[in-house]
Amino acid sequence: MSNYSKYQEILRKIADVQYASAVLNWDQETYMPSKGAEYRAQQLSTLAGIAHELSTTKELGDLLELLKNDDSLGEKEKRNIKESLKKYIDNKKYSTEFVQQLSKTISEAFQAWQKAKAENNFLLYAPYLEKLVKLKRDECCILGFESHPYDALLDQYEPGAKTTDLEVLFADVRIQLVDFVKQIASKPQNQESFMFTHYNKQKQWDFGMDLLKQIGYDFDAGRQDVSSHPFTTNFCSEDVRVTTRINENDLSEMIWSCIHEGGHGLYEQGLPSSEYGLPSGEYISLGIHESQSRLWENNVGRGLPYWKANYKKLQEIFPDNLQNISVVDFYKAMNIVKPSLIRTSADELTYHFHVLIRFEIEKALIEGTIEVKDLPSYWNSKYKEYLGINVPSDTQGVLQDIHWSHGSFGYFPTYSLGSFYAAQFYAQAKKEIINLESEIENGNMSLLLNWLRSKVHIHGKFYSAEELCIQITGEKLNFKYFMDYAKNKYSKLYDL
Amino acid sequence: MSNYSKYQEILRKIADVQYASAVLNWDQETYMPSKGAEYRAQQLSTLAGIAHELSTTKELGDLLELLKNDDSLGEKEKRNIKESLKKYIDNKKYSTEFVQQLSKTISEAFQAWQKAKAENNFLLYAPYLEKLVKLKRDECCILGFESHPYDALLDQYEPGAKTTDLEVLFADVRIQLVDFVKQIASKPQNQESFMFTHYNKQKQWDFGMDLLKQIGYDFDAGRQDVSSHPFTTNFCSEDVRVTTRINENDLSEMIWSCIHEGGHGLYEQGLPSSEYGLPSGEYISLGIHESQSRLWENNVGRGLPYWKANYKKLQEIFPDNLQNISVVDFYKAMNIVKPSLIRTSADELTYHFHVLIRFEIEKALIEGTIEVKDLPSYWNSKYKEYLGINVPSDTQGVLQDIHWSHGSFGYFPTYSLGSFYAAQFYAQAKKEIINLESEIENGNMSLLLNWLRSKVHIHGKFYSAEELCIQITGEKLNFKYFMDYAKNKYSKLYDL
Repeated sequence: MSNYSKYQEILRKIADVQYASAVLNWDQETYMPSKGAEYRAQQLSTLAGIAHELSTTKELGDLLELLKNDDSLGEKEKRNIKESLKKYIDNKKYSTEFVQQLSKTISEAFQAWQKAKAENNFLLYAPYLEKLVKLKRDECCILGFESHPYDALLDQYEPGAKTTDLEVLFADVRIQLVDFVKQIASKPQNQESFMFTHYNKQKQWDFGMDLLKQIGYDFDAGRQDVSSHPFTTNFCSEDVRVTTRINENDLSEMIWSCIHEGGHGLYEQGLPSSEYGLPSGEYISLGIHESQSRLWENNVGRGLPYWKANYKKLQEIFPDNLQNISVVDFYKAMNIVKPSLIRTSADELTYHFHVLIRFEIEKALIEGTIEVKDLPSYWNSKYKEYLGINVPSDTQGVLQDIHWSHGSFGYFPTYSLGSFYAAQFYAQAKKEIINLESEIENGNMSLLLNWLRSKVHIHGKFYSAEELCIQITGEKLNFKYFMDYAKNKYSKLYDL
Repeated sequence: MSNYSKYQEILRKIADVQYASAVLNWDQETYMPSKGAEYRAQQLSTLAGIAHELSTTKELGDLLELLKNDDSLGEKEKRNIKESLKKYIDNKKYSTEFVQQLSKTISEAFQAWQKAKAENNFLLYAPYLEKLVKLKRDECCILGFESHPYDALLDQYEPGAKTTDLEVLFADVRIQLVDFVKQIASKPQNQESFMFTHYNKQKQWDFGMDLLKQIGYDFDAGRQDVSSHPFTTNFCSEDVRVTTRINENDLSEMIWSCIHEGGHGLYEQGLPSSEYGLPSGEYISLGIHESQSRLWENNVGRGLPYWKANYKKLQEIFPDNLQNISVVDFYKAMNIVKPSLIRTSADELTYHFHVLIRFEIEKALIEGTIEVKDLPSYWNSKYKEYLGINVPSDTQGVLQDIHWSHGSFGYFPTYSLGSFYAAQFYAQAKKEIINLESEIENGNMSLLLNWLRSKVHIHGKFYSAEELCIQITGEKLNFKYFMDYAKNKYSKLYDL
């Protein structure tokens, strides 16, 4: 067996264990009975420990050192070795004990977060979150960093991203968006009350399933279930699962989560199955992952052509709610801009203030300038400052998101990066695909999907996020595309 | 840390990996999309390999050797060491390659069996089953045996059981039961056509869930889902899952699978949670496991007191089907004795002919006196011989059961053992629990459950099956209890 084949075999074994963990996680968040939580945490911790051991063997290290200098390898293979070596070096920095402790704390914190959110009691969650923040601060030191400890965490989700760059980006965003949102606020608000009438759960579910099918999500290689926080996970590129949530008094929750998670799912289903377990079979970064979900959710799903394709059907399913609402009124209601409490149901513009707040809080937590006990009041003051609103309960405030309970610090900024990449990619798609939006209007999403398949999905991790962006659009990430998209769309919507 | 604590830690880690596999298996049979099958097989194979490696380390072997002679241990701890040492010695006989090959072949065979059964095409399954039978014959040699190779397989499910003993038992069974079933056949048959009218799926599901709750199944520590072949699995004693199937044109399928799997589930939920991963937290044997499901299914669930408790409700749910049927008519219909094709829907008496046939086939396959290609015709001739019926299709014949696709040879005999243990245990319960059957008639199942908890569940694997049987009833397994039960019940039902 060649060294490269040996390397492939080891990576695939590691993937087997990690995807097994993913199945256990999926089950934990969808179907697991409550009493199963304690031993599930232990099982996940054991698997994490085993994956870590397999990822840090001398055998793998030696192989990677040999392959690093093997000029007979092709470009894809070289790229795989480079990525795997970086990961190996990072993994070697962790002790098995640390990995297991982190995994166990995460499982416990997740359970505590669920309970705390349900009971609106931050104190139930705080001790677990404190443990997690402590572990995450330790992790920054374990991984090492040049200028800011938070860089070490960012790099896990968005390789190469730097805190200082994000500070510049978010400052630009804030200045330009704040101004634009103020202009919108000075205009009369569009009608949206019909979105909050009663929409039958099962009918919503069926409609969402149709939306997933329409964008090309393959149900022989995936499924949708219900969970309290929608997510996408995969156990290979032929078993990619999404979840949704349904609010009978708010139609939009299900619609956005379906299209958003569907976009993530299409990326995972589009990764080359034969590259299972290798970097060439993996997504590039969370920012690029999010670009795929946001492109479908915002650039496509919140657009008028998309609703020209789908509104008639929706109206037929819910005649009592929608019979007197035109497709344009519906489109306007889907795009109301106004400050709100919950990130996942925010409009496309104020959404980025939610991310900004979490970015600032995470930085402060990791720097140690605030502590977990200060979180609720700090959170609430930020919402007052940036969104001008009072937070009535922690359930609608600091407890709303699952991420911290998963130990995911450094993750939130990728949401904004994703939207900005999406705007840039979609602008390019419109240039390259003839009649893109009239095809969408006819319910034909396959041109866009095929474009994304060939431009993004099929390449796995062959390019970095920056390389991919240049490859597709001819330039690095440029915030201008998002602002152009926003100004063009919302100037019409609000008659600016 | 004491040696015993080290031993506990190792066993719990092995259990974590094995229970993770169980989650992947559960998912495979309930929710996994079809394209996920290939990599799932690989993931299960990897986990099986890891569990095998962990189960056969020198560290564990040395610990067990030390602990074997540790007189300071209590009785429970000594028993655990004895059981673990036996398992360790058996495990050491397998190579990791063999274990992985077996696991992968099983996953593939399962997929092939599903397809073959759906399409009534044995040939789709045959090549995989051939591989499996070959591996199973190898396994007998790997494990070793004294008088018959099949003993090696039996021992995995029913420790200590011998082929020669089963031959004697099944001969006794056949002679006594054949005669009794012939007597029944000479009598007029009871009415049952109303069982096969249309019963709404959702209403059946809801009723089945109520039956599970009534017998004491804890839904905070378990759940029910749908699968093509009902089964029970567990990932700890606080996450025990059952599945059922629902036939809209045969009410009994759902009812029997709910009560049967519920009985298995109660055993698993009753095992001491603190003994996770240790023999003291495990079931004794499949025969004892089956005694728990059969006791609830047959001795309780097919009895008149049970239906006096539940029939009124059922009648209210399905008035069109049952309004003119009395509880006694219903009870009679639930207990029709007649030869049939499908084991899982057979009556309590002819059921054992189905097991007998599989026992004879398995013996012959393992001995090598028949081959996989001969299976359909051999199967059909046996059904003609013992049950007097023609098998119209392989789907209703040799393809009906999941077991062989799981590599489970030596498993079927435990079904009959379970029924016989159940009859013996239930006879004892009636002696010890005052007014047992009138309590059941009032819907109070807790006296019986508590009795089973204290007599069977709580002990884990502390006793062997034989020891447990003596402990509870004062004697070894005695077929007489089953025949007494059968004669007493069916003589009344058929006016013999």
